[in-house]
Amino acid sequence: MKLATLRTSKGTTAAVVVDSGFLPLEADDAGALLAQVNWRETVEAALDTMAAGHGAGVVAEAEADLAPAVTRPGKVVCCGLNYTEHILEMGRELPEYPTLFAKFADSLTGANDRITVQGSDRVDWEAELAVVVGKELHHANEAEAAEAIAGYCVANDVSMRDWQNRTLQWLQGKAFDDSTPLGPVIVTADEFEANPNFSLRGYVNGELVQSGETSTLVFGPASLLAYISTFATLRPGDVVLTGTPGGVGSGMKPPRFLADGDVLTTEIDGLGRLENTITLIPAAATSSQPASERQGEPR
Amino acid sequence: MKLATLRTSKGTTAAVVVDSGFLPLEADDAGALLAQVNWRETVEAALDTMAAGHGAGVVAEAEADLAPAVTRPGKVVCCGLNYTEHILEMGRELPEYPTLFAKFADSLTGANDRITVQGSDRVDWEAELAVVVGKELHHANEAEAAEAIAGYCVANDVSMRDWQNRTLQWLQGKAFDDSTPLGPVIVTADEFEANPNFSLRGYVNGELVQSGETSTLVFGPASLLAYISTFATLRPGDVVLTGTPGGVGSGMKPPRFLADGDVLTTEIDGLGRLENTITLIPAAATSSQPASERQGEPR
Repeated sequence: MKLATLRTSKGTTAAVVVDSGFLPLEADDAGALLAQVNWRETVEAALDTMAAGHGAGVVAEAEADLAPAVTRPGKVVCCGLNYTEHILEMGRELPEYPTLFAKFADSLTGANDRITVQGSDRVDWEAELAVVVGKELHHANEAEAAEAIAGYCVANDVSMRDWQNRTLQWLQGKAFDDSTPLGPVIVTADEFEANPNFSLRGYVNGELVQSGETSTLVFGPASLLAYISTFATLRPGDVVLTGTPGGVGSGMKPPRFLADGDVLTTEIDGLGRLENTITLIPAAATSSQPASERQGEPR
Repeated sequence: MKLATLRTSKGTTAAVVVDSGFLPLEADDAGALLAQVNWRETVEAALDTMAAGHGAGVVAEAEADLAPAVTRPGKVVCCGLNYTEHILEMGRELPEYPTLFAKFADSLTGANDRITVQGSDRVDWEAELAVVVGKELHHANEAEAAEAIAGYCVANDVSMRDWQNRTLQWLQGKAFDDSTPLGPVIVTADEFEANPNFSLRGYVNGELVQSGETSTLVFGPASLLAYISTFATLRPGDVVLTGTPGGVGSGMKPPRFLADGDVLTTEIDGLGRLENTITLIPAAATSSQPASERQGEPR
């Protein structure tokens, strides 16, 4: 099953992928859907209604405006330095504990949205597998954590390296508004065998810059969820980003960063593809215009 | 005006402090109240109704169960290394940018709650001034940010130093569930002159361990809010913790940490006092019991 969140004239709605497009569901986003104990019944009932109505209510794929796969997660937890090959090629030792940092729900953006960054000239890419939590987890072991994975999607932990390195803590370079695409859909875990291996790739203007296999993660999805749950309860709709393989721009010689107009593509076999065009705005052009009045921006 | 959030049999409610206790208001918490454009009218109307009803509906102070001052902030942003005297006494240079990290809404706890920490034996204290946001801020200047401060409260950025230092990113030592007391009330900014100086103190079992003046902050409240707003939009109910002065346990020789049963007191003149008893649980005693079934815990 593939779940998504669509923007509509009335806000956002959860949806399920059907042959003819996206079928909206009774929930504000896929995270709120997953928080319903009987969410599968909600989906099945909607599919039955659709079948009885000969497909009425379906949003055609070309007309769908994809929001972040979940829009209001209570927690977005990200892991750095997590690909074995990349760590070893950098001459580092494998870590004993995952390096974790947070983003905000506001940091997320849609699979095809324009990413507008103001005040950074070191915008870098980090193609990542994202895990969406389906059950509450508190001091879980790995088997319980694996069981609690609702599904998987594609993310790019777009990072403003100049801001990230202003201080020892990365947050300010990682949590720009609307900078982390998440989507296009959540493919539910039951579509895969246990502990699946995903192949992920990142492209800039069509040029392959990153590729990796999640089988080489130091801390795989279940391990990460279990670890996080020993200090912070995870809840349905929460998102965990699992880290990025080698090939980021700041590691290139010379370093390479995204330019205004660049197209960043992130794809994972079996999960889908994000395609985000980058817009850079100089720092000087600041504005105190509230975000609620900035709806007219191109996307 | 003093705002608070109370736990009730039906969840939580915003409340305003009155002579006889706390008057509940039509909002789930003080953050949701502040998100109402006309929240002052909501409060005034409730006060009028109370006066007409001779105080009916007021919760006596002794019966009030204080939740975190705001319970569901979209952002909790914390600043480290922010007190001039402490930085200079440590022989460091004043920073050009604030060191920022995040907590989760779930990291917060009430002013008088027991703080239960599992799996850490280096639980340290950080008495802090907290600022609650009252208006949406995006690329704000300092004057706009000052204007958007809804009020102030007391916080303690209780930090599990062993977890904090497992990796370069502090999150996992800072974001334990229910570890950061926030309250007891939000004193609205109109109760103070512009850019007020607050005196804050921290005590362990009644012994003074920290004291500071917020006039010595490198980045004051308005400066912090303005800076954060250049990358992440701040919204009503969001919380910013402004950092801690010298006197934390890990800086003592020898280092000192909280023991099971210790009472941690945090107070700021004009804002109030937090008093939290610490319970430490060994790491081995893990459990997969979901948080929703742990309501019977002593508090």
